Amino acid sequence: MKLSDIAKATGLDYSGDGSIDIRGVASIDDATEGTLAFLADPAKKEELMLSGASAFILPEGVSCEGKPYMVSNRPLLAFADVVGLFYPRPQPKGVDARAIIEEGVSLGDGLSLYPNVYIGRGASIGDGVSLYPGVYIGPGCTVGEGSTLYANVVVNEGTAIGKRVIIHGGTVIGSDGYGFAWDGTCHRKIPQVGGVVIGDDVEIGANCTVDRATLGNTIIKRGSKIDNLVMVAHNCVVGEDVLIVSQSGLAGSAKLGDNVIIAGQVGVAGHLTIGDGAIIGPKSGVTKDVEAGAKVTGYPPQPHREWMRIQNTIQKLPEMRKELRALHDKIERLEKENHEA
Amino acid sequence: MKLSDIAKATGLDYSGDGSIDIRGVASIDDATEGTLAFLADPAKKEELMLSGASAFILPEGVSCEGKPYMVSNRPLLAFADVVGLFYPRPQPKGVDARAIIEEGVSLGDGLSLYPNVYIGRGASIGDGVSLYPGVYIGPGCTVGEGSTLYANVVVNEGTAIGKRVIIHGGTVIGSDGYGFAWDGTCHRKIPQVGGVVIGDDVEIGANCTVDRATLGNTIIKRGSKIDNLVMVAHNCVVGEDVLIVSQSGLAGSAKLGDNVIIAGQVGVAGHLTIGDGAIIGPKSGVTKDVEAGAKVTGYPPQPHREWMRIQNTIQKLPEMRKELRALHDKIERLEKENHEA
Amino acid sequence: MKLSDIAKATGLDYSGDGSIDIRGVASIDDATEGTLAFLADPAKKEELMLSGASAFILPEGVSCEGKPYMVSNRPLLAFADVVGLFYPRPQPKGVDARAIIEEGVSLGDGLSLYPNVYIGRGASIGDGVSLYPGVYIGPGCTVGEGSTLYANVVVNEGTAIGKRVIIHGGTVIGSDGYGFAWDGTCHRKIPQVGGVVIGDDVEIGANCTVDRATLGNTIIKRGSKIDNLVMVAHNCVVGEDVLIVSQSGLAGSAKLGDNVIIAGQVGVAGHLTIGDGAIIGPKSGVTKDVEAGAKVTGYPPQPHREWMRIQNTIQKLPEMRKELRALHDKIERLEKENHEA
Repeated sequence: MKLSDIAKATGLDYSGDGSIDIRGVASIDDATEGTLAFLADPAKKEELMLSGASAFILPEGVSCEGKPYMVSNRPLLAFADVVGLFYPRPQPKGVDARAIIEEGVSLGDGLSLYPNVYIGRGASIGDGVSLYPGVYIGPGCTVGEGSTLYANVVVNEGTAIGKRVIIHGGTVIGSDGYGFAWDGTCHRKIPQVGGVVIGDDVEIGANCTVDRATLGNTIIKRGSKIDNLVMVAHNCVVGEDVLIVSQSGLAGSAKLGDNVIIAGQVGVAGHLTIGDGAIIGPKSGVTKDVEAGAKVTGYPPQPHREWMRIQNTIQKLPEMRKELRALHDKIERLEKENHEA
Repeated sequence: MKLSDIAKATGLDYSGDGSIDIRGVASIDDATEGTLAFLADPAKKEELMLSGASAFILPEGVSCEGKPYMVSNRPLLAFADVVGLFYPRPQPKGVDARAIIEEGVSLGDGLSLYPNVYIGRGASIGDGVSLYPGVYIGPGCTVGEGSTLYANVVVNEGTAIGKRVIIHGGTVIGSDGYGFAWDGTCHRKIPQVGGVVIGDDVEIGANCTVDRATLGNTIIKRGSKIDNLVMVAHNCVVGEDVLIVSQSGLAGSAKLGDNVIIAGQVGVAGHLTIGDGAIIGPKSGVTKDVEAGAKVTGYPPQPHREWMRIQNTIQKLPEMRKELRALHDKIERLEKENHEA
Repeated sequence: MKLSDIAKATGLDYSGDGSIDIRGVASIDDATEGTLAFLADPAKKEELMLSGASAFILPEGVSCEGKPYMVSNRPLLAFADVVGLFYPRPQPKGVDARAIIEEGVSLGDGLSLYPNVYIGRGASIGDGVSLYPGVYIGPGCTVGEGSTLYANVVVNEGTAIGKRVIIHGGTVIGSDGYGFAWDGTCHRKIPQVGGVVIGDDVEIGANCTVDRATLGNTIIKRGSKIDNLVMVAHNCVVGEDVLIVSQSGLAGSAKLGDNVIIAGQVGVAGHLTIGDGAIIGPKSGVTKDVEAGAKVTGYPPQPHREWMRIQNTIQKLPEMRKELRALHDKIERLEKENHEA
């Protein structure tokens, strides 16, 4: 692809020789001849000299001597567009004869249903959906148009998945919530008869679990992005455009507002509310509600700066203890002196 | 279903019009006409007025004006019974021709073996077992009567599963224990040739891992309930009626007594013993044995109240440090005064 | 198998009756007649008297009265050899007709391809590879000779797996890295078009996730061993002979040197470097680079001994606070006395 064609397709301006051939994209470190790389941070512009790339996407105000480049005020987004040119969405594969489709299933057009897919009775699969081998779709579930479920994803009965949703391999949606009641002899199972609703443009990583609601629905709203190995328990509500990083877990009925960010390995206790735009730092244990816009870290969580100050002070604890003893001795001496005086 | 029939089937008394039709169950907030909801906490009885439910299960001592209700001293258990009436156990589906059953497998009656199930040589599947698509049962394994293994569960060779066990999607039983020995050049694998034994009425969540023993068995005893994404390592013994919440992990040869409760995101180090009825708080790191009946939290764990007291004091550390410096200055001044005097 | 034959096959010396029959291996506690057990720790030699084993592997300097035994300066490694005699690598099963193999796949000799395996176009499967039911191999992937992928492992497009690699059930390799950029309206997906390279003799536990690189490769080098439910994010580099214990996670672009050990439930932040031979204690949150050979624990990590000292001091915080108040009062009294004097 000519650089001038790439620039045209992505709506960017370019400087230098637009006729050079670009055969792929690469990171600035690994780039070889014929590739295009991007620079996000103007402070690292000396990396351009060392890079083997044949052309660049540069942030505004940065230029490159001797090589052609395009300029964007959002180089990462521009790069995402360029990558999309080189890796277009694959053509639909059709419905493989070895995909297993039970009675009463509604199938859209332009599907990629691989071998060993299982679709239960009465499920509804929208246009352009891709289901990789080993995907299980329970009876009556819906999968909205343009969604992709990678290999061995499990979608249990009672789940509704929106449009353009991506779910990575091995993730389980709609497993039973963890609900038991001690009856004096054993833990009796509380039947989990609710469902799961996943909004448009949600992405869920690999080997996650999203439990069905006890009653009603567990809900993940439009545009939220969930990393790998995350647990979303029964009756949780995850707002719009939320980010949840790997290995975090939400306990039952936790409610996240819109634009919340949960860093990695965080735990959120049950029935809590985290307000719009709040940010929870890594490895936090959230034990109480968090206000909209708050930035908290720790277990229990504190304002992020306060948490940092406390962590720094903790390092000095043994020294503080020593000093406390020294003061104690000095005071005893002073008391003795005063007493003698 | 008439309310009077529900009351009869569950052995509860009712007040009001028993002839009304109940078409389903709902949570008190979401309930619509024709549904039955329950109230667990008498303090929240004002929610009854706002609820759209047509009837209720109420705790003893609470009544409801204008709508019929049943009374129970354990409303949650009573509700579980009612839910069971509306969602009866599904009828067996039979053995699908696309289930793959190797030689010498023993199959009980009333099975639901879905397409793409794989059962290895010599395995034994009890009456009324349900195996969903993509379930793998290794050679020689046994699955006791009435058990349900959801889609894509993996049960490796050497596993014995009891009766009425439920295992949710994607869980792997009988993977190799993590055992290596450095031989001077590389980490040599210690062959893991033990098995896994899972008792009756155990429930294991989605995407968990239960490793086989190096020698002997990893054991999960009767009635224990394990949440999603939990790790049980080689040679662990989990007692009866234990609860382990999501994303917790037991290292090799950890032993839990009966009725232990492990909250979420806890780690238990190897070869430790946790006594009967002990409760481990969320995110704890258990580094030493825990006595029966103890309630501990933290890393290392402390008695739960002590842990709370320490966490509260930690918040005050920066302030303590400031105060320590102030005392230091005052003492210097006093010493100087005494010296001058 | 006669004890003398076992000794010969493993190159060990033995004492006592070499003609006895050994029918299996066992742990020293559970051993029954006809089994061979091993003792690693000379301090526990009294366990020999109580063990039902018919013969032992003992560390140098330990002997056993009345029963034959072999001696090794590395009893665990010797035991691993003996176990290998009793559980030889199974014979290849061949290529099952119900394995699904797309066009252009290259297949080696001596394979075990089970039913319901899926191998995408142009993939390459080396000699002696075992793929269990439900394994998915994406288009163009390579699996080196002698590797074993257990049931329901997912290997996405763009993955190269070395020789003698073991991957346990449910693990997902090559899922998309977690990369998004806010475009003012929503989180735009950064296409993840890199791959994953897994070196020879790597072992990865059950239900792990290893994400593909954004560009370039996520790399796990020769001989590294990863436990269950571990997360390796996009563009990570894991050195040779690294150990990563269960439920730990590496964020994007983290780099581990050779022989690093990461204990359980650790989180490593993105773009950090952990030097060769460093050891990270359990549940740590690694927020900065770690030097080669360092032993650190905590969040943020400290030298392990320092961390222990701090943890011990934290227990005494409430007491320290009380003492601080007492000193404060004493100083006030002293100041008053001095003032009055």
